Amino acid sequence: MTQNLQNYESLKPLFNPQSIAILGASESPYKIGHLQIRALIDGKFKGDIIPIHRTAKEIAGLTCYPSLADVPGEVDLVIFCLGLEQIKEGLEACAAKNVKAAIIFASGFSEAGAYGEQLQQELGQFAKTHGIRIVGPNCVGLVNTENGLIGTFTPSFLTVPLDGQRGVGYISQSGAFGVLTYMAAAQHGINFNYFVSTGNEMESSFEDFMEYMVHDPQTNIISGYLEGAKNPEKLKALSKESLQKNKPILLMKTGKSSAGSRAAASHTGSLAGSDKIYDAFFKQHGIIRAEDFDDVIGFTKLFNPNKLPKGNNTVIITSSGGRGINEADRCEAHGLNIVELSAETQAAIQKSLPDYASTTNPVDLTAAAMVSNPEFYLEPLKVLVNDPEVHNIIFTDFPYAWDENSPQLQEFIELSKASDKVIGLFPFPLDGMTYPKATKALVENGIAVVPCNLNPVRALKKLVEYSEAYRQSSITSLADYRQPHAVLDDLLVSGETLSEAQASEVLARYDIPTTERRIATSLEEAVEHATAIGYPVVLKIDSPDIPHKTEADAIRLNVQTPEEVSQAYVEIVKNARSYNPEARVHGVSVQEMLGEGVEIIIGAHNDSTFGPVIMVGLGGIFVEVFQDIAFKVAPINRQDALNLLDELKGKSILHGARGKTPIDTEAIVDVLLKVSALMIDHGEQIQELDINPLVVYEKGIRAADAMLVVKEQQVIRQAMEG
Amino acid sequence: MTQNLQNYESLKPLFNPQSIAILGASESPYKIGHLQIRALIDGKFKGDIIPIHRTAKEIAGLTCYPSLADVPGEVDLVIFCLGLEQIKEGLEACAAKNVKAAIIFASGFSEAGAYGEQLQQELGQFAKTHGIRIVGPNCVGLVNTENGLIGTFTPSFLTVPLDGQRGVGYISQSGAFGVLTYMAAAQHGINFNYFVSTGNEMESSFEDFMEYMVHDPQTNIISGYLEGAKNPEKLKALSKESLQKNKPILLMKTGKSSAGSRAAASHTGSLAGSDKIYDAFFKQHGIIRAEDFDDVIGFTKLFNPNKLPKGNNTVIITSSGGRGINEADRCEAHGLNIVELSAETQAAIQKSLPDYASTTNPVDLTAAAMVSNPEFYLEPLKVLVNDPEVHNIIFTDFPYAWDENSPQLQEFIELSKASDKVIGLFPFPLDGMTYPKATKALVENGIAVVPCNLNPVRALKKLVEYSEAYRQSSITSLADYRQPHAVLDDLLVSGETLSEAQASEVLARYDIPTTERRIATSLEEAVEHATAIGYPVVLKIDSPDIPHKTEADAIRLNVQTPEEVSQAYVEIVKNARSYNPEARVHGVSVQEMLGEGVEIIIGAHNDSTFGPVIMVGLGGIFVEVFQDIAFKVAPINRQDALNLLDELKGKSILHGARGKTPIDTEAIVDVLLKVSALMIDHGEQIQELDINPLVVYEKGIRAADAMLVVKEQQVIRQAMEG
Repeated sequence: MTQNLQNYESLKPLFNPQSIAILGASESPYKIGHLQIRALIDGKFKGDIIPIHRTAKEIAGLTCYPSLADVPGEVDLVIFCLGLEQIKEGLEACAAKNVKAAIIFASGFSEAGAYGEQLQQELGQFAKTHGIRIVGPNCVGLVNTENGLIGTFTPSFLTVPLDGQRGVGYISQSGAFGVLTYMAAAQHGINFNYFVSTGNEMESSFEDFMEYMVHDPQTNIISGYLEGAKNPEKLKALSKESLQKNKPILLMKTGKSSAGSRAAASHTGSLAGSDKIYDAFFKQHGIIRAEDFDDVIGFTKLFNPNKLPKGNNTVIITSSGGRGINEADRCEAHGLNIVELSAETQAAIQKSLPDYASTTNPVDLTAAAMVSNPEFYLEPLKVLVNDPEVHNIIFTDFPYAWDENSPQLQEFIELSKASDKVIGLFPFPLDGMTYPKATKALVENGIAVVPCNLNPVRALKKLVEYSEAYRQSSITSLADYRQPHAVLDDLLVSGETLSEAQASEVLARYDIPTTERRIATSLEEAVEHATAIGYPVVLKIDSPDIPHKTEADAIRLNVQTPEEVSQAYVEIVKNARSYNPEARVHGVSVQEMLGEGVEIIIGAHNDSTFGPVIMVGLGGIFVEVFQDIAFKVAPINRQDALNLLDELKGKSILHGARGKTPIDTEAIVDVLLKVSALMIDHGEQIQELDINPLVVYEKGIRAADAMLVVKEQQVIRQAMEG
Repeated sequence: MTQNLQNYESLKPLFNPQSIAILGASESPYKIGHLQIRALIDGKFKGDIIPIHRTAKEIAGLTCYPSLADVPGEVDLVIFCLGLEQIKEGLEACAAKNVKAAIIFASGFSEAGAYGEQLQQELGQFAKTHGIRIVGPNCVGLVNTENGLIGTFTPSFLTVPLDGQRGVGYISQSGAFGVLTYMAAAQHGINFNYFVSTGNEMESSFEDFMEYMVHDPQTNIISGYLEGAKNPEKLKALSKESLQKNKPILLMKTGKSSAGSRAAASHTGSLAGSDKIYDAFFKQHGIIRAEDFDDVIGFTKLFNPNKLPKGNNTVIITSSGGRGINEADRCEAHGLNIVELSAETQAAIQKSLPDYASTTNPVDLTAAAMVSNPEFYLEPLKVLVNDPEVHNIIFTDFPYAWDENSPQLQEFIELSKASDKVIGLFPFPLDGMTYPKATKALVENGIAVVPCNLNPVRALKKLVEYSEAYRQSSITSLADYRQPHAVLDDLLVSGETLSEAQASEVLARYDIPTTERRIATSLEEAVEHATAIGYPVVLKIDSPDIPHKTEADAIRLNVQTPEEVSQAYVEIVKNARSYNPEARVHGVSVQEMLGEGVEIIIGAHNDSTFGPVIMVGLGGIFVEVFQDIAFKVAPINRQDALNLLDELKGKSILHGARGKTPIDTEAIVDVLLKVSALMIDHGEQIQELDINPLVVYEKGIRAADAMLVVKEQQVIRQAMEG
């Protein structure tokens, strides 16, 4: 916590400087060193602007100084309008002057090859040593619209209106996309309080700026454009803190598609990680994923009135049947429920509407409402605000007749203000035609007005998800990570693929139920083991070098008699030899034959971004053909484990599809938590683990086979150094 | 064909009248009867406007006549600005004056109850008898922007610019949604040639107007908003004709969601049909489904340059890495392939770009292209137009510097014009900021400019699909509907659910391979049959009243000996009795026990909109848990049958997933075509048919069980009358 506030305090000079010096100030109106000064002046920066110029006395009416050292008072922030080769000298001057913050636009650093990479590391280290917080390099800069700090040479920021709603802190790993989003939001009435283009993150990272905003009282929503998380642990801690403060984190993570990942990797050099794991991580920690720039606008508008939706049940009120159906299609496509209204509610609505209006959801007031009977818009609202089954109310249009002075509009607003339901107007996007005269009054009174092509329905669904995450965070945590811990050093040999028996031993040490198995190294021993275990049995080759036993024809199921055991033993050894003459063979594993149950797969691997990741899927063909799997980042708690199962498309199989008895999902949860504990304890050594199949019964569970690959020591060392 | 042109010719007075009379013309500027006259004047209608008013001499400067009969010359079109009760008289006057077309706005007809329904039928019949083509009632009207016929009282049509691209004929079953789409398109530079709000379709239907546009030389794209198809046969014929003329049909079909269907049903009273069947029907006949209003705009802009994409392979060119990734995500989400560029192509692009630009797809020109090096935009284009692996080229932005006089812009345009690839600019939607100065020149020269929030990527995917359908339509048809035909009258008893043996007999008559089966009515007979068929056998109760034999415990598999047959027979008869003492039992069916194969399900049912529909799915749990099924409307041809299989998510199972041998898909196709023939021959009698499971082998196929429900005679009669 102290650590956290330290970051916040030390970033203050960057966001809230009293004085800004411009290194590389220029008299030429087309140069960055001039554009930057103009931007601060035009942005009405509330503090001193100090151009540094060797010879000029004055630029744009401001007194110049020949060097930083010559500036009489303190300088909080320095903006570098300098090229690559002058950055070092500039930073040294900052250190000498005790400057605590800098913005660096220059490119040519880590994005441009080895020389730039080296220089960036050096300068980053220098800045850290001298306590200088830095935005950039290779960035568009930083903007604080609260104090007029337009810390960027891009004049676009000043071309959009500044009279919109506030509260959003926005951080972008893409300069251009960030600027475009800032401007689009402003054109739609949302002004970001802060805009940060993080660039190469030489000293301060995406997560550092997030942390600032989590602690900043003026930020209500933290949003951003993320290409790759560099510090997922910090992201996780921040998301928890932010959720407790009811500050949604809304991130657009690009590189969803394979091509996108390709570009993301080459664009920033951050390890992009698999998109599915990002999805899992975001969901686990209550981070809302923006699908596109418009989600930032829609979500903010819907969140601002400070009413968190109680659920998915949504009612559409329209004057056009067609628009109503269209909006209903959109709602259901995004997972909102167009709730069937109760007979009482319908009757109550019907009372004050003509017969030809439709009181089913979508409620169709008919064109008369728009043209001659604006009061129709009030009637269903009066009823719906009192229906506990209704969580969200969407209007597709609004009466032309109501302006800010209409008593009916006032009544509409009073009804809305008194209600805890989310109320939105999602009009068709026709400039100056379909928006109501009283839009301003509606917005000021907590009714979100978002044109339907900005996807407000999708944003509403995201707000529902956020509300759910927020509620879950405020109830007592169900987390329970206490699990057995075990020493595995004897088993986890660098670079090895463990034999089935070894992998099963790993599971057994974590109390995961496995089949009874004994290794036979002779025919006689095999028969002995089979008799001890009890018929029928299974025989399999046990070799770290033959992970795919079926392929090697080195497995026999349902072996019934001593004679069959002998025959199976001979065949298995022979087939294994001919499959791989070099294979190290520990013997033949004699195992109990498991009864029929539902086969699932539980796996784990080490993700390059997020570390240990847990996977669950339905077994066999379901994984292979339908890819019906779900992921969570370890460690997972009980709720995570339940959510994992709930995310499977074929989950009904667990709950007894086709008239079968439900299987022991508690046993699956137990294994998931144990695998999570195993991966947290030994994830640095384990490359990947597959328990496949894991057979689940009405009561109980058994791992029938397992595969475990140990990381190569070198890889581990590199990872620890990296 | 003659029939078709008759419809076209007779609709001409509606679309291209020389003279229009207004019934209900009014002197009051707020009444519809005045607004309509003003709309025609302001729309600069190229013909005579004749107000009919009992007393007034002149309205809006136009000479009035007291009645239609008093008008001296011919009247082509009459617009009814009259209420419900005056329509009949008006139509009689039309008939007397030999008027051939009318627009009727009035509501209160079939949408309002029995009285209106009755009146509508009467008047519709009257109009048909007298050859009067009608738009409406309960509609917004008809607009022809070519001759200034603003046949509507809604002045909105005149508030949008009229200088856009043309060629779209638009027909809407929702008045309001249609108007909004018309206006949004105009704001984005697309002016519909025709706009028709069909209303209750008293005399002319949605399909009639489509047919007009198929034959109209000025229409290049037929688009519309459909709530429910009333004449799918006609839609099918029109789609074929339209495809042959390379006129895309682009329909938005609402009511996708369950709530949407609910609303659609109550909104127009048309039978909405299952959305999945609409999807299947559209796909089968090359009709493109618009997801939302913006698809109409995006598709039109992309289609207008008259270059049909050769495929899915798409390249993105950008000056912002972030925008590039974002666009790549969008492309892959909609099924466009972000093609990996070949080493040669990359090398060729690299030659003229700086090192820091990225030549992988998305091609990232970097911000330098936008700011200082606009020529970067030309270089990759020069290479890509010659790469046969590239089908579509998307720019996310464009140099600020190029205006219409730039030689570089001219070169860009020349390259684009000479190429058969689709080239589009999908800029970020910031008014007056992100659109290039030369937008007009680009559009005029066949480069589609569509803001990225109008979903041009989705529209491009739809254009790819259209092109594919168009190409398929122009190659020799693979259709082969010739199939066995059989008499089934003895089996299809009204309202019956057939016994398995009866249903199997139906299949057998259509040469669909079934299992060998014999009905035993005594224990001795059962043993005899088993011996004749050969062990092992299956025994099942054969009763039309026990369709679910497993539930009744009246089925025994893998019966191995005469003793087992006797025991099974006794148990089955006993269990069936106790399960349903009233059941009519034909006996016990003794069948050959089929070997293991891949189980699929083939079904058919009678859709309320489309008639016989064929379904295929993977068997058992795949159907029930994953709902992995696909539909086509009968009759289907060979290509349809192959497409059906291709639409299954688990199709890899057919082709030998998990190292298994591929199964006999030809045999599945054969059964599908035979079921199609069966449903075309006897669909009027068959309510539903399930062949489940149908066991498919490496070679061959066998129906193991079948269920068939015969429609109730009454239902058939109603259907024939209706």
